[in-house]
Order: sequence, then C-alpha cells, then structure tokens
Amino acid sequence: MNYILKDENAIYYECRFSSDNALYLRCGSDAYLITDGRYATEARERVVGAEVIISKDLITTAKKLIKKTKIKKLHIDPKEWSLYNFSKLSKKSDIIYKRSPDFSHKKRIIKSDIELEILSEAAKLGRKAFKRLSNEITESGFGESEFALTHSAKSILSKYGKYELSFDPIVAINDNSAKPHALPTDSRLEAGDILLVDAGLKYKRYCSDRTRTIFAQKDFRFGTHQKFTSKQIQKAYDTVLKAHDHAIKKVRSGMRAKDVDALTRDIIDRAGYGKYFVHSTGHGVGLDIHEMPYISSKSNTRIKDGMVYTIEPGIYIPGKFGIRIEDMVAMIDGEAVVL
Amino acid sequence: MNYILKDENAIYYECRFSSDNALYLRCGSDAYLITDGRYATEARERVVGAEVIISKDLITTAKKLIKKTKIKKLHIDPKEWSLYNFSKLSKKSDIIYKRSPDFSHKKRIIKSDIELEILSEAAKLGRKAFKRLSNEITESGFGESEFALTHSAKSILSKYGKYELSFDPIVAINDNSAKPHALPTDSRLEAGDILLVDAGLKYKRYCSDRTRTIFAQKDFRFGTHQKFTSKQIQKAYDTVLKAHDHAIKKVRSGMRAKDVDALTRDIIDRAGYGKYFVHSTGHGVGLDIHEMPYISSKSNTRIKDGMVYTIEPGIYIPGKFGIRIEDMVAMIDGEAVVL
Repeated sequence: MNYILKDENAIYYECRFSSDNALYLRCGSDAYLITDGRYATEARERVVGAEVIISKDLITTAKKLIKKTKIKKLHIDPKEWSLYNFSKLSKKSDIIYKRSPDFSHKKRIIKSDIELEILSEAAKLGRKAFKRLSNEITESGFGESEFALTHSAKSILSKYGKYELSFDPIVAINDNSAKPHALPTDSRLEAGDILLVDAGLKYKRYCSDRTRTIFAQKDFRFGTHQKFTSKQIQKAYDTVLKAHDHAIKKVRSGMRAKDVDALTRDIIDRAGYGKYFVHSTGHGVGLDIHEMPYISSKSNTRIKDGMVYTIEPGIYIPGKFGIRIEDMVAMIDGEAVVL
Repeated sequence: MNYILKDENAIYYECRFSSDNALYLRCGSDAYLITDGRYATEARERVVGAEVIISKDLITTAKKLIKKTKIKKLHIDPKEWSLYNFSKLSKKSDIIYKRSPDFSHKKRIIKSDIELEILSEAAKLGRKAFKRLSNEITESGFGESEFALTHSAKSILSKYGKYELSFDPIVAINDNSAKPHALPTDSRLEAGDILLVDAGLKYKRYCSDRTRTIFAQKDFRFGTHQKFTSKQIQKAYDTVLKAHDHAIKKVRSGMRAKDVDALTRDIIDRAGYGKYFVHSTGHGVGLDIHEMPYISSKSNTRIKDGMVYTIEPGIYIPGKFGIRIEDMVAMIDGEAVVL
C-alpha cells in the first residue's frame, strides 16, 4: 500500500519523528519524511526507516517524489487533508488518490509489546500524579477556584513542565461535574463537595487517561471507595462503580465493542439512570487520546488482544452532579488488565 | 455574501460564541449557530445576531437549513474544511461551493475600536506578566532548566489558570535561542547567559505576543536596554534593536507590507547579518496569534489604520545564540503605536 500522511501522530508512528510541518510518503519500499529547515537536525537524528528530505514547499517536493516513483495510486486519509492542501497536492497530477478514512488509526489499533510497556508507564505516571494532586488539594486546595485547581492539576500532571498533557484536565465541582466536558469556573472547593478530575499525561508521546470522582474532605484519596453524605449521590456513585468493575471483569477478547458497552450500560439502565449516561463506555488510547477501538453501542469492532482503551461509565444529573470513573485497560491473554 | 464557517475564531467573530463542535451559516439576512447539546446553555446565553440550533449531526442540519433558504452559492474557506467533512457537506447537493481562502481573515484585518481596546489590554497584561516573570527568575530561576522556566512562564502568563495562552511560550537559553522555534531542553540558566522569552496570553479571546532577549543577571529587567559581556552578542543585539526601533518609527499607513519588512531587513543586511535573519518581520495579531497582515518581503498588502501586527526582527547564529525583539503595534492616525 502506497500512502501520504500529514497527521503528526500518524507520521510519528511510521518513522519515530514528526514536526508541525511535515509529510510522510511511502511508495513501495521507499519512504520519505519531508519537513522544513527548522527541523533538519532533529529529523536527521531521529527518523527511522525513511529518507529525510528538507524543503521549503513540502507539497511540491512530495509531488516531485511521487512523479519519480511512477506509482499510480496513493492512499490518503480525507480527515487529515484540508480541501486547500489536497487541491495543491492533486492539481495537475495523474495519480489516483484513494480516500481511506482512518487508515493510520486502523494500523495502530493493536499495540505492540513496546507500545504496551510505554502506555503502562504513562498510566503509572498518571496515577502517581493523581496521588500528588490529592496531597496538594488537602494541603492548600480547599477554598481555591476550579481555575486554580485546574492549573494545579496541569502543573502536577506535567511535573512542572517535564511531561506534556494528553488534554486539558477537567477539574469540576458539584453541579459543574454534571457536564461531561466541563470548563473551569470561579466555583471554589469546599469540604463536602463532589470533585471530578479527568486528566492524563504523555510519556514518550503516548497518552494516559483517568477519571475519579471523590467526596472532598481532608486527606481524601482518588481511590474508587468513596463515601458521600448524600444518599442520592452515593446510589449513583455505587452504580457507576459497579458498572465500571463489572465491565473490566467480564470483557473478553472476541467480544464486539457494542457488547462491552452493554456491560456498563445494562447496569446503569437497570438502576434507572439510563438517560443520564450520555456518552459511550470508552475509547482507544495511544498516540492520540481518542483513537480506535471506540466502545460504543453502535460499534461492531471485535475486541482483540493488544488493544488499549478506557472503561468510563458515568451518570450526569443536570444542574446537580455528575459521576464518572475511568481507567485504561489493555487486553492481554483474552482479559482486561487495568494499566 | 452567503457562507458557512467551521473555524472557531471565524465563528466567534461573527456571533461572539464558538465551541469545538460548531458551524456558522449566513444566508442573506439569516444567520445560524449550530452546535451540539453539550453547549446548548452557553450558546443560548452568548450568541449575538444568530439563531442557535442544537443538533447531533451538524453538517446534516446545516444542509437542511441551506436547502430551505433556496440560495445557490455558498462561500467556504478551503483551509477550514477537511476533505472528509466537505464531502459530507457537498454530497447530493445542488449548491455551488465557492472556495475563498482566508475570507474570514480578510474581514478581520482591520480592527474595530473595541477590538483595539481589547488587544491593548491583552498587551498590557502580557507586559505585566513579563515583569512578574523577571522577578520570579531573579528569586528562584537561576539553576533551573528551560523546562522548569517554561512552566513558570506558563503559570505566570496564565495568572495560574485565569487566562489562556496565545501559544506555548518559548524560553530559550544561549545556543537554544538560535532556533526561532526552540523547544525546551534540560539546559539550566546561569548568570551571564542569554535568555530569550517569547510569550503571550489571551484576554477576551484576543492574543498578546512579545519577545525579549536579555542578559541574565540578578535583578535583570525585560526592557530593551541590555548590556552583554560579549562584544559579538552586543553588536548583534544593538543591530536588532535598531531595526526594531527604526521600523516602528518609520512605518506609515499606505506603505506596503514588503516595505515595512525592508525597514528592519535593510538595517540587518547592512550590518552584515542578512543571512541570519531567517523569518519575516512580523504578522497580524487578533483572535488568531498569526493572522493578516503578514509583514514579509513578498507581501503587497497595504498597511492601513486599524491594523495590528508585530515587529520582530531577529538574528540567529546557529549553534551560538539568537536575538529577537518583538512588540505589537496598532496603526493609528497613520503611525504605529506600540501596544
């Protein structure tokens, strides 16, 4: 298969290097990483299995290389290319561009042993950061705003600049936790609040992702055992935890993604919260924070050994509170192992 | 002109709201902001001059609205649309999609009085942050790595989570400052080093952007008067400062952007550093950190009152050091005013 890639993670997967201005071209046994002069030194040091070409006009250079190889068909992912860049690429060209959505993501759905090790380390670093964050909140977080707590989460997750983040962390208090994609507000954390934290970091470019919802009190922990003073909240919490634990225990390689989704959804449905579980059970995690497999009620994807994805059921009562518990799992020897 | 927008800043400019999943459609006197249920409350509170439509499938909803209006031609910016999304939009449709690159940016090139006020405040907050950063570095920054200093810059620029950043700040020491887009390293700041800081924050969504290069010593300031111990560095520094000051003093509305570029480039060329000034003199700043006008040697754009852009000449001696001095200016009554 011959192809040309534009997405940074797709390019990195092929040759262990990418930049914000790069193309990767694979034509038969030849491969090229094309980037501009700013990245020449790093590219030459790091690229594996491809020739480094430095250019001021990446697309024009790619077109010349393609012409030389005399290939006739090239795959592209139509999600990676803007109309503008694709017009430039395909103009006055005899190549047939075959549009193959997500073809790089499809290649990346089964993780290698090395990738599993890296993802496991990313998850471990993420867990440690949650622990540090709980210490910091106990020490100085009560009375602080979601803005300030989000900033603390960023500082601790990144180890004060050492790691990149998988995404902007969500730190949401009480009714703000009822929004699955809450943005920070001026609300301040008080003892007795519900606190939801969804955060991850990147280790060797691979993402971690984790969510905990806790009862805010001195010396709290981001563990899954939480005691809330409100019975209503406790019932929702216990339901989410049961769904989370059940799915991790029962999922097997060979099942379809929609059957994994049903493992959490059935429990939440039966407890009467069905309409408050407004998203899918999980998503794959790797170089991208959201990738295949998607654990949704519509997906027929077969779960296989080597896949890494999240299990993250939730219950969101608008205007009141939200609960989500999320862990990353890897499929190993047919079963899910929490990373 | 009828059009459909996908870019967040382009959408925000039209209706004072955007989300990471939104479309803006303008058909004659009718305008629609289409987004999903997660953003319903905020959209209804904030959108100005457009009807809010909530949808699970934005493009399909847009197609239905377009069909109802019976218009025949719709402008899009081909840089905003992926091949994938555009295929979905244009499939089984009789509309003629007119590809107009940068048409939203072109509308936004002259800032209104309100925008000028906001940009001025953004620049002021950015300057204050530089001052705080110099205090923090004097107190505890010597001996710290570029990673840690970059993190400090992020914390201070964002006021610990209150503001978003215009971009990831560049904090580069000695030879790393020779890379115009330096990434942080483990290098540690010592007294006597060259330190380059390029950073900005967003105020009411508008960006600030500023660069200073300083001689690192206790109680240093991010002012433009700097004394280096090395004569070679001082000569390059004085050349960049002269180019920067000269351009700001001499630029007039009515000139072409390439003539503004020549104001800095000629001075650097004449001092013998021409080949070390490897980028353009500046770029427009607004909702986007890089927008029109581009102050490059190839641009025929006429500079006009109300434009806001950077003046940022630089000299980069590979493997040794880099100097850049950058300020934002607004064209007012024919002349450049530093924001």
